[in-house]
Amino acid sequence: MENISIIGAGSWGTALGFVLAENGHDSLIWTRRAEQADEINQQHSNSQYLPDVKLPENLTSTSELDKAVQHANIIVLAVPTVAMRQTCKKIQAVLKTPTIFVHVSKGIEPDSLKRISEIIEEEVDESLRSAIVVLSGPSHAEEVVLRHPTTVTAASSNMEAAERVQDLFMNNYFRVYTNADVVGVELGGALKNVIALAAGISDGLGYGDNAKAALITRGLAEITRLGVKMGAEQQTFSGLTGLGDLVVTCTSVHSRNWKAGNRLGKGQSLEKVTDEMGMVIEGVRTTKAAYQLADHFDTTMPLTEALYSILFGGIPPKQAVDQLMSRGKKQEIDMFFGGI
Amino acid sequence: MENISIIGAGSWGTALGFVLAENGHDSLIWTRRAEQADEINQQHSNSQYLPDVKLPENLTSTSELDKAVQHANIIVLAVPTVAMRQTCKKIQAVLKTPTIFVHVSKGIEPDSLKRISEIIEEEVDESLRSAIVVLSGPSHAEEVVLRHPTTVTAASSNMEAAERVQDLFMNNYFRVYTNADVVGVELGGALKNVIALAAGISDGLGYGDNAKAALITRGLAEITRLGVKMGAEQQTFSGLTGLGDLVVTCTSVHSRNWKAGNRLGKGQSLEKVTDEMGMVIEGVRTTKAAYQLADHFDTTMPLTEALYSILFGGIPPKQAVDQLMSRGKKQEIDMFFGGI
Repeated sequence: MENISIIGAGSWGTALGFVLAENGHDSLIWTRRAEQADEINQQHSNSQYLPDVKLPENLTSTSELDKAVQHANIIVLAVPTVAMRQTCKKIQAVLKTPTIFVHVSKGIEPDSLKRISEIIEEEVDESLRSAIVVLSGPSHAEEVVLRHPTTVTAASSNMEAAERVQDLFMNNYFRVYTNADVVGVELGGALKNVIALAAGISDGLGYGDNAKAALITRGLAEITRLGVKMGAEQQTFSGLTGLGDLVVTCTSVHSRNWKAGNRLGKGQSLEKVTDEMGMVIEGVRTTKAAYQLADHFDTTMPLTEALYSILFGGIPPKQAVDQLMSRGKKQEIDMFFGGI
Repeated sequence: MENISIIGAGSWGTALGFVLAENGHDSLIWTRRAEQADEINQQHSNSQYLPDVKLPENLTSTSELDKAVQHANIIVLAVPTVAMRQTCKKIQAVLKTPTIFVHVSKGIEPDSLKRISEIIEEEVDESLRSAIVVLSGPSHAEEVVLRHPTTVTAASSNMEAAERVQDLFMNNYFRVYTNADVVGVELGGALKNVIALAAGISDGLGYGDNAKAALITRGLAEITRLGVKMGAEQQTFSGLTGLGDLVVTCTSVHSRNWKAGNRLGKGQSLEKVTDEMGMVIEGVRTTKAAYQLADHFDTTMPLTEALYSILFGGIPPKQAVDQLMSRGKKQEIDMFFGGI
């Protein structure tokens, strides 16, 4: 049994707390809001994020960050990308002993273009973090709490830590693989949201499965190209955190990035989509980041460029997609090494 | 303009005839049944396979094989895998001049375990075939005739022939890439039906998107492993005819292999599924072939083995899936090079 604190009580943080508690660990979940902590402690539910789910009684909650931080020898960071740096600063301020950091967020920091593990490295003293592990994969929280079969990857440059995280989470419905390629796992999880937006746009335009399959295939090829230039292993993009997560995000109507793309494809403006959905659309930010990374690493990313021109250049979706389809004749192998 | 004959008037053969005729080629489609040929010639429709679709007037039809064969300098073979050898024998008997053979079927011949291009090589004299090209990819016929964006791959050991086929079919909604890897393209198209059956079973068991994403990812990894041992390029399986076609087949409710798997997952017997669907389920045959190929090429294919044990060994689907999920802890990289 380990003492684990989960920072963030959204649907994914809560689902991971559910798994850890079911595995017998002393799991404490931190939320900013005291009334949410009370609900978890007293009613064993988190009705806002996982309605109708009975949480294990050994999953407890607190709204005091220092209490959560000092409880744990393993901290699971489950806050949105934009809140990550601030959260790390606050943890650092109250952290006393070396701790393993596991993060489960999928994004790239705007402007700095940093990956999540880079943010943690910058904000938490080396003496206070024994390892950083990223846990990622195709995993709707709603399915995990139904104990439906789910597979994810724990990646770290410290394989011993990755295996310890594997042991913590692994059970008969939640299966964890290890991988040493942190860069590939982080980039796959973040960049897939760009392709999900594009897939939503294609569906919104009324195009079919053939078009979406082409976008997924060519999209994975271009994020792989970028990833490899950034130091990732090509193989990782064919795994759970690349292909697997991409497929779920592009084909599930539950994906908020797909939903946003779908509305864009139907002709809504980006402002209207953002307003009406009332939440952060990670893929929009990630498209900007991917566009900047493509430029910086001198990588051809036609799909990302097309999406950028729709989101930030006012190009109508149909025109951008039709342009993608009318490029010159190509050998398929170019898809991986050159253009599209 | 070229003279092209399409052998087989199912939905895919007809959709390809539609594209070729729209591109201005003299396209003749052969069907065994004279009344179907009459319908295409007089009413410009193929109501059995593509209801409500108006075919181009320059797409004509015949039920006389010798007429179709002698019309063409390019023959498109669009018959089911099981009919391929017999059809080639009949064509050979009336063929007089060297012709390019394009095949669009996705399967492996039972017992012989031959790919389609190997069957053509065996049944048509070398002097009478100037090249063999396989055309494959994520492409529902129903979407092609709506002119929705579609991408496919033309593969041949003869790159000049592949490019000629690319030119024939390419237009603003139908995009063709070339590839030299015939083995990879043929195997991807055939073996994806095994994974589609498994995905259908998972859905039929009531499992969710997480489980299906895992099956797709691990399934693609194992058919890639087999393909590489058989001489294919790993890259091809990440392309349109591997990943792309796999995604469409596993996530579309129109896929008959997914449908069959779904019924199996819900507890129907294989006999009942086959009887009630009243048609060939290519994936069932392909699972047997893949199982035999895995044995012959000494390749670990846990998903294919699990599916084989369900289809031919009487193992209940839930037990087989749960066994897959309870294998020992693994590094993700093993997924590609070793077990699962």
